[in-house]
Amino acid sequence: MGERVAFVGLGVMGYPMAGHLARAGHEVVVYNRTRDKSARWVGEFGHRAVDTPAEAAKDADYVFVCVGNDDDLRQVTTGRGGILEGANSGTVVVDHTTASANVARELEGAARERDVAFLDAPVSGGQAGAENGVLTVMIGGQIEPFERAAPLIDAYARSTRLMGPSGSGQLTKMVNQICVVGVVQGLAEGLHFALAAGLDAQAAMEVISKGAAQSWQMENRYETMVAGRYDFGFAVDWMRKDLGIALEEARRNGAHLPLTALVDQFYSEVQAMGGNRWDSSSLMARLEKSSETG
Amino acid sequence: MGERVAFVGLGVMGYPMAGHLARAGHEVVVYNRTRDKSARWVGEFGHRAVDTPAEAAKDADYVFVCVGNDDDLRQVTTGRGGILEGANSGTVVVDHTTASANVARELEGAARERDVAFLDAPVSGGQAGAENGVLTVMIGGQIEPFERAAPLIDAYARSTRLMGPSGSGQLTKMVNQICVVGVVQGLAEGLHFALAAGLDAQAAMEVISKGAAQSWQMENRYETMVAGRYDFGFAVDWMRKDLGIALEEARRNGAHLPLTALVDQFYSEVQAMGGNRWDSSSLMARLEKSSETG
Repeated sequence: MGERVAFVGLGVMGYPMAGHLARAGHEVVVYNRTRDKSARWVGEFGHRAVDTPAEAAKDADYVFVCVGNDDDLRQVTTGRGGILEGANSGTVVVDHTTASANVARELEGAARERDVAFLDAPVSGGQAGAENGVLTVMIGGQIEPFERAAPLIDAYARSTRLMGPSGSGQLTKMVNQICVVGVVQGLAEGLHFALAAGLDAQAAMEVISKGAAQSWQMENRYETMVAGRYDFGFAVDWMRKDLGIALEEARRNGAHLPLTALVDQFYSEVQAMGGNRWDSSSLMARLEKSSETG
Repeated sequence: MGERVAFVGLGVMGYPMAGHLARAGHEVVVYNRTRDKSARWVGEFGHRAVDTPAEAAKDADYVFVCVGNDDDLRQVTTGRGGILEGANSGTVVVDHTTASANVARELEGAARERDVAFLDAPVSGGQAGAENGVLTVMIGGQIEPFERAAPLIDAYARSTRLMGPSGSGQLTKMVNQICVVGVVQGLAEGLHFALAAGLDAQAAMEVISKGAAQSWQMENRYETMVAGRYDFGFAVDWMRKDLGIALEEARRNGAHLPLTALVDQFYSEVQAMGGNRWDSSSLMARLEKSSETG
């Protein structure tokens, strides 16, 4: 039985996520900053597009959000014409933006004043995970709205988990990104060394991927890294945004993140190489370049 | 049908590996620098112990070696009373020491002059892998001796692969260690951040271990890292030895290993904390300490 839902932000993630909600039988009203994308979405999935997040929220029991960063998120939530202007009492806002834990707590507080629930719900699994409906969703917030929203989220998620109070979803996503960059930089150095040493990189990866060096990144990225192909995947610009959030949060909670800080700087070098849109495995390209010029 | 084999070096790895050869029906002569260990081995597996590597090699068609480092390896191979003093023409030396690619090539040359084959064959899988006979063996050398020795190595290995000419086994092992330290430091920072942020670390690991952050280290080490337990596993001193070899080799082949060099320094801090024998996942202990005092 379909629910009345709104979806704010039809980017590479939001577009297919909203599509899964439509296919699951919900009544979906969409809003996107640029109109052509919402028009395209309506052309593909039906339903209707509106001009402001407030309008989208007006008739919705659930409002899903997936925008760029903290500022975008504030704007569509508490800004003029934002979600909280239109939302009815009892609405649940599910925010899939990867943002700071601070903005999550701030917006949860603002929402609560209007008797609206706000869940921070960043995802992992990337564009492919969104398109195939197999995302992992890490949620911070209250249990009651979580339990109401979870069945809807299932339309595009393989796994949905309440991690703790408001902000906990964002904090968990930061843990994910911190672990990822260690794996990727280690893998990049390993492959770079293998090539410099004249080894058959494919054979080396096959042998070591059975043991203590194994990782998802090794299994899914070594071939493209050796081939120097980075025109896909999770963009360096997005990774820098996420690492910026994690490093800022660590400034508050006192965590010591030397590798994360270093790799963040390496990504700035990839950006300087023109790699803003390259996959985050392009740390390898930076090493190969250092070697050429070194 | 049993072969005549010698085993030189009955440390935590060599002791059970030689045991697997004995159980597989080979006639095993053992040598160890300290006599009590070879006496204990003979007490457990039968056969006999001798006083020098040369004596061990005298009646053997295959000589297995597993000692500490480059110097130990040179000593037992080309030193006085070493393997090449006793080995007959046609013998195959299989060296399981993790050593430099340079010493592998040097000893392969010295062996060839006496018509003896020398394979560099470092392993991964640790003490548990040696005890359970499920090691991964990465081999450098000629194909003919590799094919002769492989069925014997199967006594304690799950996977044995010829990686290329002499030195290629060692180079592959270095790739493994480079990848491992990136994963471990990233995981340590992720867990350290999770604790500082007040997350349920177990829940966070369960959620993110399904995706792009997944690794063998995450699956097998996060619980002990959160508990601060490091009294097991692959010791920090051994990891530093291996990283020293990798960084030295990179000095020659021009590979750029900033993360590896940094984590090597972090391990020196773990040593300064008294962690020489701690598992290499103790990079986490260093972060927790920095946080306490920082």
